[in-house]
Amino acid sequence: MVRWEPGTRERLQAAALDLFVSRGYDRTTAADIAQAVGLTERTFFRHFADKREVLFGGQELLEQAVLDGIAAAAPDASPLETVQAALEALAPHFPAERRPLSGRRQTIVAENPALRERELLKSAGLATSIAAALRARGVPEVTARLAAGSGVAVFGVAIGVWVAEGEERSFLDIQREVWEELVAMTAVSR
Amino acid sequence: MVRWEPGTRERLQAAALDLFVSRGYDRTTAADIAQAVGLTERTFFRHFADKREVLFGGQELLEQAVLDGIAAAAPDASPLETVQAALEALAPHFPAERRPLSGRRQTIVAENPALRERELLKSAGLATSIAAALRARGVPEVTARLAAGSGVAVFGVAIGVWVAEGEERSFLDIQREVWEELVAMTAVSR
Repeated sequence: MVRWEPGTRERLQAAALDLFVSRGYDRTTAADIAQAVGLTERTFFRHFADKREVLFGGQELLEQAVLDGIAAAAPDASPLETVQAALEALAPHFPAERRPLSGRRQTIVAENPALRERELLKSAGLATSIAAALRARGVPEVTARLAAGSGVAVFGVAIGVWVAEGEERSFLDIQREVWEELVAMTAVSR
Repeated sequence: MVRWEPGTRERLQAAALDLFVSRGYDRTTAADIAQAVGLTERTFFRHFADKREVLFGGQELLEQAVLDGIAAAAPDASPLETVQAALEALAPHFPAERRPLSGRRQTIVAENPALRERELLKSAGLATSIAAALRARGVPEVTARLAAGSGVAVFGVAIGVWVAEGEERSFLDIQREVWEELVAMTAVSR
């Protein structure tokens, strides 16, 4: 019988990120991570398929949250308002207490070409899913792809700002400012 | 002595795209491509490092053209105007007579997951290069990343529209319309 251990996944994740930073991602094994929190490798694999999933495991949840947000948007919302509202719904996933972990994750991914590729492909996949969800609401192809691409760009830039050393604003505030920057930037060019 | 054969690269490229479509990318070899135009495999490898380069070989030229365009932009151009002008300079690379070849290329890349990944990574690399070129002109980080991401999104959407079955507008006209759509889309959300 497997006993339910509250917070085990989070403890493994925190230990993994610490080891990835201190020892290097490639030189850290699942056994190392489990050992760091006094657990067995087998326990690690009950929570994660592999060590890469420690970094990317939560992204399906984020994608689903965005798609749910699009489905729930007011029928008369513009395509960009729809994407914006859906991305605002992500804020609870990025509370202040997660900022140090997210920052470590960004550093590890940025430093490893294979992880960086995976991150880019995940972002592209998110944009494709958002565009499909917009098309399902009757948004024309070109608008759907632009709105999806803009949304993913804003989200990516906002995450980067949020985890920067010394940053103290909330993820929600930062993401709103990046949206405003996008709107201001395009307004200048008309 | 290697004799200069005008148009050899173009003939190899056209034959390769035909074979990739009819026989499948994975089942086509460099020797097949060379043979289709009455040349040796060795000649193929004088023009392309491998068969994948037939699909991606021109992209360094495009990236350099965009970066040259950014460097040449008026000092008082806004970040988005700078990117827009640089992308307009790409139009000569997409004349009407290349549309069928480009369309075949898009189809092949879209159908092969490994090629699709490579295409996404190339796009992401282009966005990174554009953002760096904007930062070198004094554009702040967030604006540079958003303008670069928007430009690459517009370019990608414009290419997709341009190669669509039955499309007859020029690449330049289409890309301008996609830019206008981006501006209109963000204007609605203010």
